[in-house]
Amino acid sequence: MEEQKAQSQEGKIAEVSLVTASPLDLLFNPKSVAIIGATPRENSVGGVITKNLLTRFKGKVYLVNPKYDEVNGIKYYKSILDIQDNIDLAVIAVPAPAVPKVADECIKKGVRIVIIISGGFSEVGEDGAKLEEELRRVVQNRIRVLGPNCIGVYNAFNGLDTFFLPEDRMGRPKPGPVALISQSGAVAGAILDWAARRNIGVGLAVNYGNKLDINESELLEYFAKDNRVKVIVMYMEGLKYIGEGKKLLEVMKEVSSVKPIVTYKAGRTKAATGAVKSHTAALAGNYEIYHAMLRQANVIEADNLTDAFDMAKALATQPLPRGNRVLVITDSGGMGIQSVDALDIRGLQVPELSESLQEILRKQLPPLSVTRNPIDLTGSATDAMYKFVLDTVLPTSYVDMALIIALMQIPGLSINLGNYIIEAKRFNKPIVVVSFGGNEYVAKFESNLEENGIPVYHAPHRAAKALWALYEYSKIKGVAKEWW
Amino acid sequence: MEEQKAQSQEGKIAEVSLVTASPLDLLFNPKSVAIIGATPRENSVGGVITKNLLTRFKGKVYLVNPKYDEVNGIKYYKSILDIQDNIDLAVIAVPAPAVPKVADECIKKGVRIVIIISGGFSEVGEDGAKLEEELRRVVQNRIRVLGPNCIGVYNAFNGLDTFFLPEDRMGRPKPGPVALISQSGAVAGAILDWAARRNIGVGLAVNYGNKLDINESELLEYFAKDNRVKVIVMYMEGLKYIGEGKKLLEVMKEVSSVKPIVTYKAGRTKAATGAVKSHTAALAGNYEIYHAMLRQANVIEADNLTDAFDMAKALATQPLPRGNRVLVITDSGGMGIQSVDALDIRGLQVPELSESLQEILRKQLPPLSVTRNPIDLTGSATDAMYKFVLDTVLPTSYVDMALIIALMQIPGLSINLGNYIIEAKRFNKPIVVVSFGGNEYVAKFESNLEENGIPVYHAPHRAAKALWALYEYSKIKGVAKEWW
Repeated sequence: MEEQKAQSQEGKIAEVSLVTASPLDLLFNPKSVAIIGATPRENSVGGVITKNLLTRFKGKVYLVNPKYDEVNGIKYYKSILDIQDNIDLAVIAVPAPAVPKVADECIKKGVRIVIIISGGFSEVGEDGAKLEEELRRVVQNRIRVLGPNCIGVYNAFNGLDTFFLPEDRMGRPKPGPVALISQSGAVAGAILDWAARRNIGVGLAVNYGNKLDINESELLEYFAKDNRVKVIVMYMEGLKYIGEGKKLLEVMKEVSSVKPIVTYKAGRTKAATGAVKSHTAALAGNYEIYHAMLRQANVIEADNLTDAFDMAKALATQPLPRGNRVLVITDSGGMGIQSVDALDIRGLQVPELSESLQEILRKQLPPLSVTRNPIDLTGSATDAMYKFVLDTVLPTSYVDMALIIALMQIPGLSINLGNYIIEAKRFNKPIVVVSFGGNEYVAKFESNLEENGIPVYHAPHRAAKALWALYEYSKIKGVAKEWW
Repeated sequence: MEEQKAQSQEGKIAEVSLVTASPLDLLFNPKSVAIIGATPRENSVGGVITKNLLTRFKGKVYLVNPKYDEVNGIKYYKSILDIQDNIDLAVIAVPAPAVPKVADECIKKGVRIVIIISGGFSEVGEDGAKLEEELRRVVQNRIRVLGPNCIGVYNAFNGLDTFFLPEDRMGRPKPGPVALISQSGAVAGAILDWAARRNIGVGLAVNYGNKLDINESELLEYFAKDNRVKVIVMYMEGLKYIGEGKKLLEVMKEVSSVKPIVTYKAGRTKAATGAVKSHTAALAGNYEIYHAMLRQANVIEADNLTDAFDMAKALATQPLPRGNRVLVITDSGGMGIQSVDALDIRGLQVPELSESLQEILRKQLPPLSVTRNPIDLTGSATDAMYKFVLDTVLPTSYVDMALIIALMQIPGLSINLGNYIIEAKRFNKPIVVVSFGGNEYVAKFESNLEENGIPVYHAPHRAAKALWALYEYSKIKGVAKEWW
């Protein structure tokens, strides 16, 4: 009896939360999903989605396809209207001409939001555009729509996954603090596959296709509210019409005050304008205008996709620096030089340490070490030397963050160096690590760091960019002052 | 009898080739090597070199160390003078104060070239500088010297390997067409480790340390003559004195007319000048001067180490383009746009194809494909479509090279796509591939291509830079014309 009561109470709470949940909440966190166009044919779009949800989704899944009654013991419904249960989210993967009718049934069923995966609308020309207009008349003010012509939503936390690329073709990243908004479905799929392999936690991802209804702005607003998201990465090609820009600008500015947005805008050159138009029927626009707009909206700009994730990794894990002064510790003079170049180009300083501080360092370090900053521990470096320098210099008021270069080819270093670096998180200053190579020590060292919240980069310029992003966002948040 | 005669003839030929061989030939291709400071202690510098050569070097190895008579059945000599056989190359890894005496013994033995691994010379201050002067007096005009204070030579072809980083810390790359000249030993070690993991063939590598004698210029000249080398990568921080620049400039220009040189010059910013000085006692100099000098010397400049190898990979494998017009084929509109941006920024063109050519494409491709260039095959792409476009467009006079984007997340593509791309080498135009992701298909697809001479990049901007390098070198060689 007790148990039953608890259950019913829980049921009630769930019910209440659904009633008050916004449609966007239901898009990412539905308790029940109906797949219209579900199929046991594994290689089709509907089939991959069906398999994804049946395998991993932590909620109820209802399959809709009039062709089937039951396959492998799982019931297929003729129509969404035949389902008794409440449906939070419907996923539509039927041929385009059938979409308006099916969407209408969703409305009748009381569904508040649908993902329309199906393509064949405005992106294919005039006939498709007409169909999209018909769809718009059906759904307008009656149901919220993501898509059409999209790959939808990926949620690593609850297993909601409408990305219709089979698992042997697209790895699924682990839950994590990065959320992705991508204007391109294929790019989103490739990014998730890449992130899965590199063990980068992308908790939420979304591609909005033709954005008949839900657009970037609304998705940004949702991610701003979701506490699991620490940083938002946006891949953009262009806007549909210039007016969109104003609203997006406002939303970006608002969201940026809550959490960082890193955007990579493709279609920057005049040469790419045509390709943008034929890809998503969007206006690439003059990149200078986008650039100015993004800057005004406090968005951090990346120059390519890997850049964006390099920065996101740091923004998701590191505290914000109070200034732009970087402590560089290295076991390779050459990598130290490359880091100073890269930091300087990004407007970050590598200040020479005070004579008294250098004196303290010199007393403990071997005579060949360089103590100015970069602190060059040379090929004789040991874990203990790194720890000593970190513990001595990082807490001082001379530096705001640390870039640590550890070429693990040097036999004096061990995996334990990673633990010393992780311990230095207690100083509450950003730390990034540069590692370069390919042996097993390198791999173990890197994964230990990343699992413990220290981002690792395979080149000094990538680490420098990540520190720059932290400093930029720190200025946006008013934590850092300009020092010059 | 017959056999004996043949052997003795072979012996004679070898003898002759040694007599005529230049000392630099002997540095990379000795038939016999003596290690002075050899030791069975595996974790020491001398010990790693001893193990390297005993394990992998395809020639005779003699161990010199008065402390040992015989270890594990291998004889140790008290002095190099005790060895009966001819010694082509001596490797010195004894404490610095003992180096002048040991070098003198090498001269007495008739050795023509030594690698002095030992540090403790001009790089450690005044006392070391005095010792280096003493060494100079001993060796000048009597024996050629690489070093001191260097990690020496790596030759993947014959297993000559004085890099004293143990194998579990530094992987050894396979033989291949890239040669590396690095001013930093640690950077060289990290690069080889990285290249080994990524299966990049770096056949020869050298670090010259304090360059008491042999310098960049001579190494460049040697690599120019070695037919196994197709492209030379140079990592530089600075020159010792300005006068060096003039000679280097001349040599670079001469070598560039034979094979491409890709250089990454670190220490570009004023901020890094101090770090360069304390690292290799070199003058970073004004980067603008270096930049102008390198340009005048027909050297292709990279912006970081991975850039340099991205370019080298293409330069080592691809024919030179006759112009700057790029065919872009993609299964992702988004990646196509990013590629056009990256190509345009580098001054390469993505010309719209002629209407008649587009008509031919449209007849065979599905209606949603875009045929202007980039050719966007969309998510419905198949291997056969790529093959059709490649075979139809690449041989025409409208394009000079191809950038092929294949997001292997798309289920319509298979490993076989790689074979179609490899077959397109018959058109004798450069081809590079962009792949992005992390699943097994991606990995197999990529390694098939790279093993068959098609370089693969994980981002459009990296592939674009590689094509740019090919075009630059094509202009240097007078193959390509400027089209504008």
